[in-house]
Order: sequence, then C-alpha cells, then structure tokens
Amino acid sequence: MKATRAVQKILANYEGETPGVKANLCRMLMTGKLGGTGKMIVLPVDQGFEHGALRSFGPNPAGYDPHYHYQLAIDAGLNAYAAPLASLEAGSDTFAGQIPTICKMNSANSLMSGTAAKDQAVTASVDDALRIGASAIGFTIYPGSDAMFDMFEEIVELRKEAASKGLPTVIWSYPRGEGITKEGETAIDVDSYAAHMAALLGAHIIKIKLPSDHIMQDEARKVIEDTGVDISTQAARVKHCVDACFAGKRIVIFSGGAAKGANAVYDDARAIRDGGGNGSILGRNAFQRSREDALKLFADLIDIYKGKA
Amino acid sequence: MKATRAVQKILANYEGETPGVKANLCRMLMTGKLGGTGKMIVLPVDQGFEHGALRSFGPNPAGYDPHYHYQLAIDAGLNAYAAPLASLEAGSDTFAGQIPTICKMNSANSLMSGTAAKDQAVTASVDDALRIGASAIGFTIYPGSDAMFDMFEEIVELRKEAASKGLPTVIWSYPRGEGITKEGETAIDVDSYAAHMAALLGAHIIKIKLPSDHIMQDEARKVIEDTGVDISTQAARVKHCVDACFAGKRIVIFSGGAAKGANAVYDDARAIRDGGGNGSILGRNAFQRSREDALKLFADLIDIYKGKA
Amino acid sequence: MKATRAVQKILANYEGETPGVKANLCRMLMTGKLGGTGKMIVLPVDQGFEHGALRSFGPNPAGYDPHYHYQLAIDAGLNAYAAPLASLEAGSDTFAGQIPTICKMNSANSLMSGTAAKDQAVTASVDDALRIGASAIGFTIYPGSDAMFDMFEEIVELRKEAASKGLPTVIWSYPRGEGITKEGETAIDVDSYAAHMAALLGAHIIKIKLPSDHIMQDEARKVIEDTGVDISTQAARVKHCVDACFAGKRIVIFSGGAAKGANAVYDDARAIRDGGGNGSILGRNAFQRSREDALKLFADLIDIYKGKA
Amino acid sequence: MKATRAVQKILANYEGETPGVKANLCRMLMTGKLGGTGKMIVLPVDQGFEHGALRSFGPNPAGYDPHYHYQLAIDAGLNAYAAPLASLEAGSDTFAGQIPTICKMNSANSLMSGTAAKDQAVTASVDDALRIGASAIGFTIYPGSDAMFDMFEEIVELRKEAASKGLPTVIWSYPRGEGITKEGETAIDVDSYAAHMAALLGAHIIKIKLPSDHIMQDEARKVIEDTGVDISTQAARVKHCVDACFAGKRIVIFSGGAAKGANAVYDDARAIRDGGGNGSILGRNAFQRSREDALKLFADLIDIYKGKA
Amino acid sequence: MKATRAVQKILANYEGETPGVKANLCRMLMTGKLGGTGKMIVLPVDQGFEHGALRSFGPNPAGYDPHYHYQLAIDAGLNAYAAPLASLEAGSDTFAGQIPTICKMNSANSLMSGTAAKDQAVTASVDDALRIGASAIGFTIYPGSDAMFDMFEEIVELRKEAASKGLPTVIWSYPRGEGITKEGETAIDVDSYAAHMAALLGAHIIKIKLPSDHIMQDEARKVIEDTGVDISTQAARVKHCVDACFAGKRIVIFSGGAAKGANAVYDDARAIRDGGGNGSILGRNAFQRSREDALKLFADLIDIYKGKA
Repeated sequence: MKATRAVQKILANYEGETPGVKANLCRMLMTGKLGGTGKMIVLPVDQGFEHGALRSFGPNPAGYDPHYHYQLAIDAGLNAYAAPLASLEAGSDTFAGQIPTICKMNSANSLMSGTAAKDQAVTASVDDALRIGASAIGFTIYPGSDAMFDMFEEIVELRKEAASKGLPTVIWSYPRGEGITKEGETAIDVDSYAAHMAALLGAHIIKIKLPSDHIMQDEARKVIEDTGVDISTQAARVKHCVDACFAGKRIVIFSGGAAKGANAVYDDARAIRDGGGNGSILGRNAFQRSREDALKLFADLIDIYKGKA
Repeated sequence: MKATRAVQKILANYEGETPGVKANLCRMLMTGKLGGTGKMIVLPVDQGFEHGALRSFGPNPAGYDPHYHYQLAIDAGLNAYAAPLASLEAGSDTFAGQIPTICKMNSANSLMSGTAAKDQAVTASVDDALRIGASAIGFTIYPGSDAMFDMFEEIVELRKEAASKGLPTVIWSYPRGEGITKEGETAIDVDSYAAHMAALLGAHIIKIKLPSDHIMQDEARKVIEDTGVDISTQAARVKHCVDACFAGKRIVIFSGGAAKGANAVYDDARAIRDGGGNGSILGRNAFQRSREDALKLFADLIDIYKGKA
Repeated sequence: MKATRAVQKILANYEGETPGVKANLCRMLMTGKLGGTGKMIVLPVDQGFEHGALRSFGPNPAGYDPHYHYQLAIDAGLNAYAAPLASLEAGSDTFAGQIPTICKMNSANSLMSGTAAKDQAVTASVDDALRIGASAIGFTIYPGSDAMFDMFEEIVELRKEAASKGLPTVIWSYPRGEGITKEGETAIDVDSYAAHMAALLGAHIIKIKLPSDHIMQDEARKVIEDTGVDISTQAARVKHCVDACFAGKRIVIFSGGAAKGANAVYDDARAIRDGGGNGSILGRNAFQRSREDALKLFADLIDIYKGKA
Repeated sequence: MKATRAVQKILANYEGETPGVKANLCRMLMTGKLGGTGKMIVLPVDQGFEHGALRSFGPNPAGYDPHYHYQLAIDAGLNAYAAPLASLEAGSDTFAGQIPTICKMNSANSLMSGTAAKDQAVTASVDDALRIGASAIGFTIYPGSDAMFDMFEEIVELRKEAASKGLPTVIWSYPRGEGITKEGETAIDVDSYAAHMAALLGAHIIKIKLPSDHIMQDEARKVIEDTGVDISTQAARVKHCVDACFAGKRIVIFSGGAAKGANAVYDDARAIRDGGGNGSILGRNAFQRSREDALKLFADLIDIYKGKA
Repeated sequence: MKATRAVQKILANYEGETPGVKANLCRMLMTGKLGGTGKMIVLPVDQGFEHGALRSFGPNPAGYDPHYHYQLAIDAGLNAYAAPLASLEAGSDTFAGQIPTICKMNSANSLMSGTAAKDQAVTASVDDALRIGASAIGFTIYPGSDAMFDMFEEIVELRKEAASKGLPTVIWSYPRGEGITKEGETAIDVDSYAAHMAALLGAHIIKIKLPSDHIMQDEARKVIEDTGVDISTQAARVKHCVDACFAGKRIVIFSGGAAKGANAVYDDARAIRDGGGNGSILGRNAFQRSREDALKLFADLIDIYKGKA
C-alpha cells in the first residue's frame, strides 16, 4: 500500500508526530474508494447516545444492529467508521481489520437538563481503543460551554496518551453552550474559531459543521469588513475554516447535520471540495436512508470528491 | 454442562469480549429451570438500601435474613441472585457455588434529600465481587439525572476492569432526575433510550422497567408517528426496547416494580416473552409474598417463559 | 480462652469473613465480665472531637487524661475501649494488650457550620490502627446527610482493607442531615434503616441510638400499620432494629446518648437485653460521672446483661 | 445446583478461605458424572510443554487440536480440564462456560539440560486465568530440586492473589531433582512428604503420583517400622498420602503417569477409592488412546468411583 | 478491505483474542501480493544485531540503509517487514502506514561468549512498538538454552500487554543451547517441539526453521517409528510442524536460513506450501542479493505460494 503523493503531502504537515499516528492517518487516507486522493468520507454513528435509538434508527430500523453500519461503511468504500466503544465492540470480531475505526471517547445525551447538557461523559480509554483495534480516537468539545475547559483538559490528556501509543485524535468541535447563541453555533466566525481551537488542542483531524454567513461576534464582523475576508459562498467559508486549521495543514472534515435531501448533501460536498476541505462525515444523512439510497449517496459523493460530479 | 444452541447463539453476539465474561454469561443462562432456554429470571434484593429493611422486609419478615433470599432463588430454580456485597457475603459460605450471584456495586437510598438523591454510592469493588465468588457485577445508572455523567464514568471503569477479569456487567438503567418527568420515567421513548445507553456503556445484560405508552420527548413522538413504530401493546413496546439494545444482541430483562397481583405479573411476563425480551428480574413481587406464594409465582413464570402458560 | 457456645454461634454468622476478623470479634466477645455471654459493653471516648475537651471532660476533669479511660474500661471489666487514634496512642504503651481497643477512624466537630457539619474527617488509617494494636476500626456514617455517599465510599474502602488485614469494622450509624428532621434522627423507621445500611456496608458491629416510637416516613408508617410490626415498647423497637441487621446476624449495640440518671440507663439496658440487642456503648454517661459512680454503673449494667437485675 | 452433603462436607474443611474459592471448588465438585459424589476426574493436557507435541499427540493425532481435549472432557462427563493458558485460550470461545478449566501456570520441558531442567517457567498470571474464565490455577512444584524454594515462593504469591480473587489452587507436587533418587520420586515416604508440603503451601487440591512401597529416607523407614504404618497395598499407601494432607481435609487426586493398559488404570482407581483419595487426573492414558477408548476408560473409571465396579 | 474467506477462516482460530490482535493479523494477511490468500512473506532484518553490519550488509552494501529494506518489502509486495525498534524508527516517517511492521523486541549477538550467548537482550517495549506504528511484536526464544525460562517469562509478559493493546505476537522459536546438539537445532522432533512451545506461549504467528529428518531425542524416535509419522519429505516435515501448532490453528512461517541459491529457496517454499505452512520469512536470502535479484526472488516465491509455480 504505497502512499500516494497527495497523502504523503498531507502526512508531512504532521511534524514531530509519532510514526504510529502517521501510519494510522495514512491507513485512513489510503482506505476505500477515495483512498489516495487526500479526501475522505467517514460514517459516524454516535447519535444513539445523543438522541436515543428510536430517533436515530427509527427511520431505518436496520440501523439498530451495529453490524449494519460496519457493513454499510465497508460496502460504500468509505475511509473509516466512527462509533462509541461498545458499538464498535459489537462488531469487532466480524469486521476485525476490514475498515479503520474511530473510537468515540465521550458522549452527550438529550435527557439531561440544564448545565450538564453542555458536557459529555468520557466512556472509553485509549487502551480500550487499542484493544478493539481502532485506528483513531474521537472526542467532542463544546467551545462556548461552561464545561469547555474541563473538556479541553480531558482531550489534551487523552490525545497525549493516544499519540504516544500511535493513535491519532479526531476532534468534533461543536460550538454550544452558555456563550453561544443558537445562530452562533454555525456562525462563520464562531465555527472557524472552534476549528482553530481544535487544531490548537492537537487534533489530527478536525470535524466541524458547515458554517453559515452569520457573524456572532462584533469584533469578528469588524475584521471581516476591514480585511475583506470572503464569506459570501459556502466554498469561501469552508476555505476560511480550512485556513483556520494551520493554513490547511490539518485534515478538516465537515458534518452533515440532520437528514436532508440528496441534492443539498451534494451541494455541501462540492462546497467542501471547492473550498479545500478534506471531506464529509455523514451520519444521519446516511443511516436514516435505506441501505440502497445510502450506497447511492456515498457513490455520488465519492464522484464529487474525485471531481467527476 | 453443554451450552444449548439457544445459549450459544446469544453468546455469539458478545463479540470481542473476554472468554471469562462469556463463561459467566453461559453459567447464568444454563442455571436453573430456565437453563438453556435463553430466558432468565433473577431475584434482586437491593431494596433494603433504597427503602430500608422495614419497608422491604416488613411484609414478609423472613426476608430480614439474607439466607432466605439465597434459598428462595435456589429452590425456585432461578438463574441468579443479585444483592449488595454485604448481603451476598452473609450467605457466601453456606451457599458457595450453589447459584450464580450478581454483586450490586452501587446503592441508592431514600433518606437523602435534593440533588444527591439522584445519585448512588459505589459500595463494592470488582475484586470484592471476585472474592465472594460472584458471576457478574451490577450497577444502576439514572439517565436524566445531573449525576448521570459521573455514574457513566464510574460504570465504564468498573466494566472495563470486570471484563478483563472475566465478570460480565448488568446495568440497571432507570431514567430519573432533573431532566425527566414522573411519567417520563417509564415513557416508551425514554425507557428505550435508557436501554440503548446501557448497551452503549457496555452492559452485557440490560435491566429496565416495562415501558408505558407515554411519550416524553416531542422529537420522539414525531419519529413514532412518521415511521409507524408500534407501541400499542406491552409486547410491542418490549420489542422496541429490545431493538434498542443492538437489535436484540444484548440480553434485556425487565424489572417488576412495586408489589402487585400475580395476574399482573404474569401478563407482564407474557408481554416480555412475546416481545422478545429475555426475562424478568423480580424483587418485591417475590420476597414480599410468603415463600410458598413466591415459589408458586416463580413456577408459573417459568412456565410462561417456557411457552407453557 | 475457649470461645463459649454463645460466642461461637455469633461468629458463625460472619460467613466469608477473614479469620483475623473473627479472631478479633472473638477477643472482644470473650473479654471482661461479660466475656462469653455474647453481650458486650464498650466505653467510647470520642466526644472530645465533637464537643471539645471542656464540654466533654469538664464535669469530671480526670477524663482529660487518656489513661483515665483505659483504666476505667479495664477496671470495670468492659469488652473494649474506643477512641480516636491519638487518644489510644497516648496510653498504648502503658496498657498494651490489656483491653481490646477500637480505633475511631473519622471524627466530627461542632465548630463547623452548615453542610460540612454533616460530614466527618478521616483521621486514621488501617495501618495506624494495626500499629497501635487495635482490635477493630470504628467509623461514623450520617444517613440522610448530603455527604452520605462520600462517607459510604470511605467506609467501604476502609472496611475492605481492614478485613483483609484481620480487623473488624464497627459502624456508628447516626441519621443526620438535610433529609432528616430532628425527631427523625431517632425515629424507629429511620433508626432501623440506618442500622440496615450499616449492615449492608459490611459492618461487623453496628452502633445505633435507641429508637423512639416516632415515624418519619409515611411509606414506613403504612407498612407498620399494615403488617402490625410492634413498636409499642423500647424492647420491641430494639428487636425491630436487630431484625434489620440481617435478622440478628450482626452484633448490634446501642449508644447511651447524653448523660442522664442511672435508672434511665438501666431501663435502656433492660430494653436492649429484652429486645435481643448485644449491649451498650456508653460514653458520657460513664466518664462524666465520678470514677466510683461509673464503676458502680457498669457493674449494675453487667448484672442486667447477665439477667441478674 | 444445590451442593450435596458430600460436597458440603468437603467444602467445610477449607476454613478461612474466601467464598469465591469455595464456589469454584463447589463448581468443580458438582460438575460432570461424578458431580456431587466428592470424587473427581480431571483431564490434564500439559504434556506438550514437557515432551513436545510429537511425543504427546503422535499416538493419537486428533490431540494436536486443543478443541479435541475440551470436547473429550465434556463428553466424558469429567469435573474439569487442565491446560496451559494458550491451550485453554484456543478453545475458550467455543467452550466458554461448558466445563470448569484449570489454568496451568508454569511449565517444564525436556529440552533443557542440567539444573534448569528441575525448574519450570511461569507462563501465566492470575488475571490471565480470570480473563479466560478458568475455575482454578494449577502449579507444579519439584520437592527435592535445587529450584524448590523459588518454586515455593512463586506459588505462595500466586495462591495468595488467586484466593483473594476467588480462584482455588491446584498443586502438582512431583518429587524430582538433586535430592531425590529415581526410585525415590514415587517412594511412599517422599510422595507423602510432597503431598504434605503442597498442603502446607496452601493447595486446595493436591495432585501427586501413586506411591510405591519403596522408602527413600532411612529416618522414614525407621518410623514406618516402629509405628507399623501400613504401606503394604496401594490403597494403604493412598490412605497414608491422604492422611498427610491434613488428615484428608484437602482434596487429593492422583496422576496416571505414562500410558498403560486399561486394567492397570482401573486397579489404580480402585486403590485410590479404597484408600480415600478423591480421584484421578489422567492425561496420557486418556488422550493417547482413541477417543472411543478414552470415553470407555472414563466411563469405567466413573463407575469405579461410584462404587459400581 | 473486505477480508477474504481464507483470511476469515484463519482469524476464527484465534479464539478469545482481542479484536485489535485480529485486526492487525488481518492487516498483515490482507497486505501485499499474497493479500487474501492466507499465505504470507515477511522480510526480517535483525541480523545486524546478531552478526554485525559488515557480515549482514557487506554483500549488498545498499542494506546498510534502513530505508532500503522498507522499500524492498513494499516494492516486492510483501505482507510485513520485521526489524529492531531503532531500524524501524529510522524509516518510520518516510514509510508510515505503507507496510505493516513487526517490531523485534529482543536481540542476540555473536560477540558474547559462553552461556550468555544463548540469551537475548530485550530492546523495546510494547508502547515503543505502538508509538512507531508497528502491527505486531516479535520475540526470539531459544528452547534448550539454560536461559529459556527467563525468555519464556519475558515473552509471556510482553505478549499479555501487547494483546491487551491490540498487537499480535510473532515468536521466533529457535532451538539452541546447552540441551541441544548442533544437528538437533533443526531436528524434526526438536523443531516441532519448539513450534509447539511457541504456540503454548501464546504466539499468534510462529516462525521456525525448516526441519531436517534428523531425530535428536530417542523417545521421539520411538514415537515416530511406532506411529508412523511421515518425516520422509520436507513437505511432510512441514506438515508435522504445522500440526504441532494447535493442528494448524496458528500461522506458521519458515525462515530461510543462510543465503543460498534461488532454486533451493524455491524448493523450500514449495515444501512449505505443500505441507500446509503459511509462508516464508526471508532475510539474508533477500537483502544479501542485489535489489533486482531480490525482487525477482520474491516475485517467484509469490507465484509459488499462489500455486502458479
């Protein structure tokens, strides 16, 4: 499995990182139908913790079975499959070694009230992730939450241990909480700020939402106006977020959000591609469709990222 | 003790798990009059901590003696007996090796006021459970409580250690706390969510309450209406909860709640059986009856689970 | 020192316990004038921490000297002497091996305000207790306090270590705190609940206050009325508390409370004896009397427990 | 699985032991066709380490496969199957929970020259044994070897940890080494001495070879002559060895040695039975026969131990 | 990267193993030109430690550069590359993720005299192996050496830790030392014994030398003659060694030994293939040839293992 030029160029940005981290990044970048292009599509299935099984899998009941998602990710030719420890474990024997997995280390839920709702519980350890053969750890931070500093300190510790044992870190950076308005959660200034903090926390792969053209902070608005940063198109906003991740020296992937029409998903992907993002991480838009539709969707997205559509 | 097909099929779902965990699951599934059927009935006696000895054992004072419950579980031909460490210890010599025991690791109580009442104290360690010869550990979580994340992090650590030493984990998943209305505690959406979280936390056996047809979350109601999930009967609701546990790849048992008439208990069991649940975990409905009545109740339940009643 | 039948029968209840724990229980049960009867009287002197030396020893200044209490307990022919580590240490050389001692591991005080007042500081370790030759550790819990879970987790750890090193655990179980009314602290339902929780936490000897006929919890009142539990006399209430301790399979002793007339103390002892309790643990009622009066008091109590008075 | 009187009587001899150890002893004593009789037959397959696969399994090549032995022990209705960690692991999933296993913790071999040949390597830990679901650990000592003290210190540590985590210890006590003549290895004085040392090292089950009427030590010969200890028959010599194990308060089983005719094996078993031994641990005599012959042999032995043959 | 049937069948033999171990075994078995066939060829370059750089790389000085070997293994389409930690590290950045690596954990050398020469130094830790992204650890044992037991205890510890963190263990099992004659080092009885011991020590992949028809132990000769084990051809002897590894339930690969003519190497490979071995691990025969010749050699071997030559 010779790494392509495109992949080697990406890996070279991870200076001073352990070879194990690079080997696992390489593995993810070289796997699947986008293998070698430097682009990636990941299937994340951690919504069960956050919304319950019913809301997550009710629309497509096949998804109650953890095997379904492994098989979908493999058959669609994706780069990796992300899920909480126990979900991964439930298929870890059947699918051992067949697709890189990202072990999600913390989990939110929507039963909780008040402050606690802006935090997550840590539900796995680095050695757990190694034990089940994961290729990376995943962790959510909520920039803007009062629990933010605790979350930062948790991921810094986990990332340090994971990197020393050869596992890269994927950070889900989702602005949320006391300091953030509802619109602000995807505001271009806040979103790119969240992406930048993930990079500063040592993320090897950064996962954010697609930014809107809303601006939450007045200070940010001023800089945008003064300097003429282009935020007029989705691609332009993606580019700004990618810039915020060490000038594109970190892999940035964008989440798909709630289920929506296929064309909207395709438009998003084209914007990600044109703005220089590295790919998509699509959960509900995939597993809440029928398997057939999901495979079609992924095939189309792969074509888009390959520049064929 | 050759494992039956039914039991082997269940064990095969626990992928990536240590052989010791499977051996102990096998032991519980092969013990008692339901041994080998894949169904199980467990006697749990941890209400003393939660309600005191008087309220728990006053109705049938024989129950003040820990030996009574061991003997009842053995004579009734149950699969396992669950209790706090010191209760188990109090009969650990007399009954050594005669019935699988589940060491309950945390305990609530009803003397506590306010917030703390939504938490539990950890009152045993994995090595304690091994020392007294237990076949599993048990742990309660309160999804919806502000203490939920702490409880999650406690059980994740305990489960990891227990599994590495060959002990499976039973999670009592009881929605309760700041984020949950009284009716919500057994609402179908909340209950199945609680079951799903237990699975995601790595439970090998999941214990929940029987769900009502109440729906607490509007988002859940929408999914139910949109997708036509059947929640019209108790059996249908059981089936939905079983689905929420990795499509039935985890053992799910249902608690009996407060003492009630035998016919109500039988109706519950038939719904559990018809919905694909794995069995009952009956405490007050057993030990608050006379020994004679309790033995009759268990005998009838065993017939129901065997499909004879 | 052959253990009597009565003592052997008590020891047999401690199933699964280390032989060292049984040896120390035997030592306490076979010491003093009640040695061999299965009854015991203990002198506890830990009020200094809780109320200060002045309030504790002012009435009988001889008590400022730790030697005084050792000598009193020995001369009165008691089973054991309980005190904080440093008090025991202060006479540990002079009285080495002359009377079993119980090292009190945590301590309250009355300088503290608010919530903290419902907790205690841990002021000794198991190895400290072994080093000074103690025969048991003692620990106070406050069922009903918001600090209760912390206290539970502390004593569970200490008890585990102590038992593994051959030391039994005495739990002082005193309902107190946010969830308890003033009257509730000695209410029969709350007191027996507290006794039961001590048993569930692994206490080998349980120390509670004598219960009143007050009932704090409505649910408990209902059970008492429905089942006809007798709480009409002190002896009947003692019996209920003893039942709550694994049907009398744990040693239960009753504290004397604030200083009072000798006859009241005698009445208490007769009720303890008639209700099946194992004895008295008398502090202020002993050391706040003159040595002469205290010796007389203990002699009379010994007669009562021997059924001679 | 109610323990029979016979089993309960045996368990009662293990005073001061953890309930977990008793539970696992009970499990082994209650399993298989001899379950409940107090007698046991164990299949040990650790000869591969000592003699190589060829010499062990060449005569019956089916034995190369670790599954073969699991299946043989289960189908023959034995009490337990003993093997090194990796052999057990190789069938740990397929046979999880179907027969108690004894994890052999150290291993000899016959490639080694000189002094080292009288020692063994420790090849597993207690947590390994727990992880794969074993019901006991096994360990060989060579009384008479210069490495004896090291072996004693190893097993003392392992036994302490195993007992604290609920696992009993089986000691293979085989006189061998610098201090022992070839004939002395099975001499009645040496063999009973080896059995006694195993008891003194804390063995819960003691495995020795059948003793000959040879006497190695002159001091022993003198005592035998002076006191008239009967060593004239195999049964008498078995009785002497059983006496040496705390007057029969420890389970003693006898190994079968090299493969021989069925009648010789039956004679051994009758002598073990008549001398009060607890059973046989038969390796080469079982797995070097065809499966059919081995099953016949075990069936006959079971009849002998049941007193039917 | 869907695992083929052939690979899944091999993985299923590793019962009770962590999913991470299986994932890494799968990765090695699915990599390179033999990927998916169940056969494998590994390039090992650890001779520098044993013989010095001059003797190892003098014949083909390009081999002084660690990058040379990485590139050779990748270009030849091998399954894995094995070397000591520092050698792997020297190319770990350039080749990160491009080929599975096996981190050799101990190393011999030929400067040492006498007894010590029969041992090896441990020169890496499991976390080192993870840090540099290795897919397995490798370890040499010398059955027959007086240092054998120390080596056994070292690998047992390393294997336990490695497996718990998802890394499989490759054991180089080379009979050598005080108990072994020169001819005995490759004698069929000794070689198959060495293979069996590696399996019993928990090796996931076993590396031995091709056995000769010499027999070192008289007891073994007897079994061979009595049972008619076929050792007449290289393929038959390979088959016997494979049988000795849990009846072929472990991957067995054969080393090539000193440099020799290509045809001899091909004959070896055909015998390995025909005897049911899993492949070759070729060092000097590869890197002491020119790159061109080595690539030709590997290409031919791949054809042989594919059954095309």
